[in-house]
Amino acid sequence: MHALNETHDPQLRSWVAAANAPDADFPIQNLPLAVFRRRGSNEPWRGGVAIGDRIVDLAAADRAQVFDGAAGEAVRAGAQDSLNALMALGAPASSALRLALSRALRDGAAQRGALEPCLVPQSEAEYALPARIGDYTDFYTSVHHATNIGRQFRPDNPLLPNYKWVPIGYHGRASSVMASPHSFRRPQGQSMAPGATQPQLGPSKRLDIELELGIFIGAGNAAGEPIAITEAEEHVFGICLLNDWSARDIQAWEYQPLGPFLSKNFATTISPWIVTLEALAPYRMPLDRPAGDPQPLPYLDTPANRESGAFDIQLQVELQTPRMRETGQPGAQLCRTSYRHAYWTVAQMVTHHTVNGCNLQPGDLFGSGTLSGPTPGEAGALAELTEGGKKPVQLPGGETRSFLEDGDTVVLRGWCEKPGAARIGFGECVGTVLPART
Amino acid sequence: MHALNETHDPQLRSWVAAANAPDADFPIQNLPLAVFRRRGSNEPWRGGVAIGDRIVDLAAADRAQVFDGAAGEAVRAGAQDSLNALMALGAPASSALRLALSRALRDGAAQRGALEPCLVPQSEAEYALPARIGDYTDFYTSVHHATNIGRQFRPDNPLLPNYKWVPIGYHGRASSVMASPHSFRRPQGQSMAPGATQPQLGPSKRLDIELELGIFIGAGNAAGEPIAITEAEEHVFGICLLNDWSARDIQAWEYQPLGPFLSKNFATTISPWIVTLEALAPYRMPLDRPAGDPQPLPYLDTPANRESGAFDIQLQVELQTPRMRETGQPGAQLCRTSYRHAYWTVAQMVTHHTVNGCNLQPGDLFGSGTLSGPTPGEAGALAELTEGGKKPVQLPGGETRSFLEDGDTVVLRGWCEKPGAARIGFGECVGTVLPART
Repeated sequence: MHALNETHDPQLRSWVAAANAPDADFPIQNLPLAVFRRRGSNEPWRGGVAIGDRIVDLAAADRAQVFDGAAGEAVRAGAQDSLNALMALGAPASSALRLALSRALRDGAAQRGALEPCLVPQSEAEYALPARIGDYTDFYTSVHHATNIGRQFRPDNPLLPNYKWVPIGYHGRASSVMASPHSFRRPQGQSMAPGATQPQLGPSKRLDIELELGIFIGAGNAAGEPIAITEAEEHVFGICLLNDWSARDIQAWEYQPLGPFLSKNFATTISPWIVTLEALAPYRMPLDRPAGDPQPLPYLDTPANRESGAFDIQLQVELQTPRMRETGQPGAQLCRTSYRHAYWTVAQMVTHHTVNGCNLQPGDLFGSGTLSGPTPGEAGALAELTEGGKKPVQLPGGETRSFLEDGDTVVLRGWCEKPGAARIGFGECVGTVLPART
Repeated sequence: MHALNETHDPQLRSWVAAANAPDADFPIQNLPLAVFRRRGSNEPWRGGVAIGDRIVDLAAADRAQVFDGAAGEAVRAGAQDSLNALMALGAPASSALRLALSRALRDGAAQRGALEPCLVPQSEAEYALPARIGDYTDFYTSVHHATNIGRQFRPDNPLLPNYKWVPIGYHGRASSVMASPHSFRRPQGQSMAPGATQPQLGPSKRLDIELELGIFIGAGNAAGEPIAITEAEEHVFGICLLNDWSARDIQAWEYQPLGPFLSKNFATTISPWIVTLEALAPYRMPLDRPAGDPQPLPYLDTPANRESGAFDIQLQVELQTPRMRETGQPGAQLCRTSYRHAYWTVAQMVTHHTVNGCNLQPGDLFGSGTLSGPTPGEAGALAELTEGGKKPVQLPGGETRSFLEDGDTVVLRGWCEKPGAARIGFGECVGTVLPART
């Protein structure tokens, strides 16, 4: 686990002025990574690091030879059109890059003259997926979500007996993971209407969001070589926001016995910026596992995981309807919660995924599963907020929503803040529902 | 669908003598593709086409400029270290390559002099995965397997109500798909013993095979753009053998509610050679869908699919135990069946997978699901052959097997044959179980 070091000092200020604003997502203590180019250009995609309202262009910094040693090597790896090579270098390389950038971006840094020409305004940038995602695995780490959604699919049996022993996960679709902002068509699919004798094909009528975090794998493991929980975080590159769009009517009909398939694989949206675990070190928390619950099996259990395996990442879902946009109203908050309520940690996910010898590769993506908190307003999916569509959400201006309608835009936001530590923002994850193909 | 043409003529003979043997897997009517190099060498991996006991080295054929036009372009794409570029060119490119190779490899072909130096003996070759697999999807297309295995997991409810409407599938793990021959460690995992109050971690005690075919996607589709069933086969590159190794004890404990995960993702083995759909054209069959069953929804139904959507591919599973190897005995046949018994066709899989707009990419892999036939001896998994381990298989020499033991080697074989058509072989898919990591 990453210890606090000089890069976390909340007193640090940058010569990039916007990084010093108290509500900045990207202060000098954050330094998240993305792949970008100037919007609408034919420039090569390349890695970048956010600082205030700017991006440190890693390809430019490489050409200008601003950094040397391990940091220089990391900059070179990050200058490519995906971050896979940087991810493959592992946690020490990411740490070296973070330290070098922190020092070079501080007030009074000697490298300012060399680095300032390498900055690109975020307002001029567009983003690609930060990595070529080899495999995408979606977990199910919120016991509150598992209970809420389980109650709708299995009223008599909401939380299955394995839940408190197994960090449940399943494989998702890598090809349809896209970077924010992302517009996608409402999916068609089979569903079985209540009382019907045969299914029908049509546009999903129960299109939903799932508020998740995405976890990018850094250094991988060879097939047959599990990752011990004490080493697990060394294999994690960082965390982004993730919206696992879900068609509940398709899901209800298709998911037995092999799990969700077409109800999920039409679109997944992630935020462009990846926040490293090191940046999140000030926001570690004890794992929120109720006292009466069974202790995890030893391979999933360490004192460090119990005492500081969780992260207090604040999360918010905002809905912007077409009418809100037309009338100039702001979006409406659908939910507010925190990642601290997750039942299984990032380290437990990595270790469980590999206990059988499954090989992870740099750029692989995990979804946390929908991050619903313990109270109704903390639910991360409409299926929970509306009790399966029965109690529509009331929106300002008299609108209601049971599920998403065409033209709806959903914005996920994430941030960490507390007294005595710098604010660490994740930016936004934005997705818009287009009408079904006709 | 590919029509019969001059490349299917059973009278064709090759100047590669071994291709003309009546039991050859790779006669001139087959021409399957793989990625290979000389065994133990540092040569670059490149595409190759099997002919008899030789491989046409596509990189060498490209350098020698043996082919021009569309076939030359296909050879150039196939000369790379994976077949993804050739797959992306689509079915017309594969057809052009097949026709050109068929003509150049025939008795008396003018190109013999140019092509013969491009041949490498199969006995000297080793194989890589034929493609970078972006996503791997495993289907469940044998109603016999679904019923047999469903009876063990859900005795009261073996075949779920969606089965005859939905080509059930789920996402599998791409990173752990490996080319034959493949050795892998017995996986560790959580399982819940009968009567136990808590699960335990340990090596799987119920390690199984799954006899499947693998289907490689050629030209992909853009996100949001479904592939109609009339176009589906144009997006298929070809078919190989696939063993979807499965840990039944891990599966039983983990699979609810999101499907199999660690019970499957430790290892999947595929045969190196991909047989094109065009080569299989003589072996098309009517779809085996019982008269009383519901007709598929229109998006999954065409006369062509009903009348010739299936393929009569003979399949065999052989087990070689360590004792058989020590005593010089041949392996024992565990099962014999045919792909003709599948309930859903290749075209239906492609169309269903994309009906929601999910994007397929060149090199994506589908598994057919375990291809059990209607009778007990046609079951493609030990869990079925032994009724969940209760009736061990009796092997020659007095050995028995409920599930796989350390050192066991499993060989899948596939071939098509009938009077009036050339034999089309798939070669072998070989995997060996190593002891669990200690």
